[in-house]
Amino acid sequence: MAGAPHSLVLLRHGESVWNAQDRFAGWADVPLSARGRTQARSCGEQLAAAALLPDIVHTSLLRRAISTADVALDAVDRHWIDVRRSWRLNERHYGALQGRCRKQVRDEFGDELFLRWRRSWDVPPPAGSMSRQETEARYRGLGVPIPAAESLKDVHTRLLPYWEAAIVPDLRANRTVLVVAHGNTLRALIKLIDGLGDEAIGGLDIPTGVPLHYRLDHALRPLAPGGSSLSSL
Amino acid sequence: MAGAPHSLVLLRHGESVWNAQDRFAGWADVPLSARGRTQARSCGEQLAAAALLPDIVHTSLLRRAISTADVALDAVDRHWIDVRRSWRLNERHYGALQGRCRKQVRDEFGDELFLRWRRSWDVPPPAGSMSRQETEARYRGLGVPIPAAESLKDVHTRLLPYWEAAIVPDLRANRTVLVVAHGNTLRALIKLIDGLGDEAIGGLDIPTGVPLHYRLDHALRPLAPGGSSLSSL
Repeated sequence: MAGAPHSLVLLRHGESVWNAQDRFAGWADVPLSARGRTQARSCGEQLAAAALLPDIVHTSLLRRAISTADVALDAVDRHWIDVRRSWRLNERHYGALQGRCRKQVRDEFGDELFLRWRRSWDVPPPAGSMSRQETEARYRGLGVPIPAAESLKDVHTRLLPYWEAAIVPDLRANRTVLVVAHGNTLRALIKLIDGLGDEAIGGLDIPTGVPLHYRLDHALRPLAPGGSSLSSL
Repeated sequence: MAGAPHSLVLLRHGESVWNAQDRFAGWADVPLSARGRTQARSCGEQLAAAALLPDIVHTSLLRRAISTADVALDAVDRHWIDVRRSWRLNERHYGALQGRCRKQVRDEFGDELFLRWRRSWDVPPPAGSMSRQETEARYRGLGVPIPAAESLKDVHTRLLPYWEAAIVPDLRANRTVLVVAHGNTLRALIKLIDGLGDEAIGGLDIPTGVPLHYRLDHALRPLAPGGSSLSSL
């Protein structure tokens, strides 16, 4: 770890019940599947095996990330660390696609539009109406309107202030930081850390159930671009 | 709720594996039993039925309180709220008695000493040696030495600064506050809130698995002494 004073671990939530059904979740608050809980426990065991012990955890406001963090931290015996949560770590808002099966959407709208919605930088899916969950106390007082649908660029834009105001100060304080979030928020974070271009990031897949470890130098640049998956350590 | 602007819910952790074996736990970090997890879920359901929705949760640094909070908050759909943790909410340190069966201790030392250790205000049990867990990062930088054994008075003394600096400001901000802690920390809290005498508090038993709701006036005095158990609402 010489020359790498800062340690950041990114973790995508375990399989949710909608992942298992191949449905778009977005801001819908679906729980982990039994397999997802097993994955979360395995992530904690991987952290323990690598002696990578988080000092603080940041999660989204969504149950699948929160449960993943709870289970993983219990497994690595770091259940007692400080916790921070923010809607800015929430999955991309999938608008009218939330709750729908990917296959149905693909059949209805065709491959080109489907892939553009999923993989492009700045094309949001069709806007949806606000769900009951989104009218709750959870999303009051954000300071900005709740999105009706987000592109990856929108996610990047709303994530940036949280990175700078909440995560960077923890890294600078030499805390080992664990971020438990979602495919698209982690993509946006990796774009930020690795300095990737707008198009490169759309093709990046974040593995589920494998902690991704970044060692960062004093300028918070990664020692190894793309970080390293724990299982390969 | 007229005239009672502040809402505080106290919750004792669900049954731990050492509760089930009738062993002193104290600062030993034992997990919930299966029954304890069921109790925690039931507590969340009781909060939901009473429409008592926490805005923030405070826990000790011990797994049985943290897991109880996680499970209960998931059940009441408040998994996303802010989290604060402090060693000042830990169970009383039981010193040399930690890990020992209550019955063995009673047989070895006799009824009088046993009851004095368990129920007196200012008599600590015999001091123990420091456990591995107590040398960990979890308990570094407390600003005070880790206790070798604590009386109920010691617990009250170390709890008071946390009440004033962390819990009271949340109540004053009109947040519904959930505290998930332990038999003796809750006893000390109730002494504080209800203004009980040193001896009265030793005889008070905190029920497991039942949220205790205090409505507090502007001076943080309880509208009903002793609060009200949710199941009786």
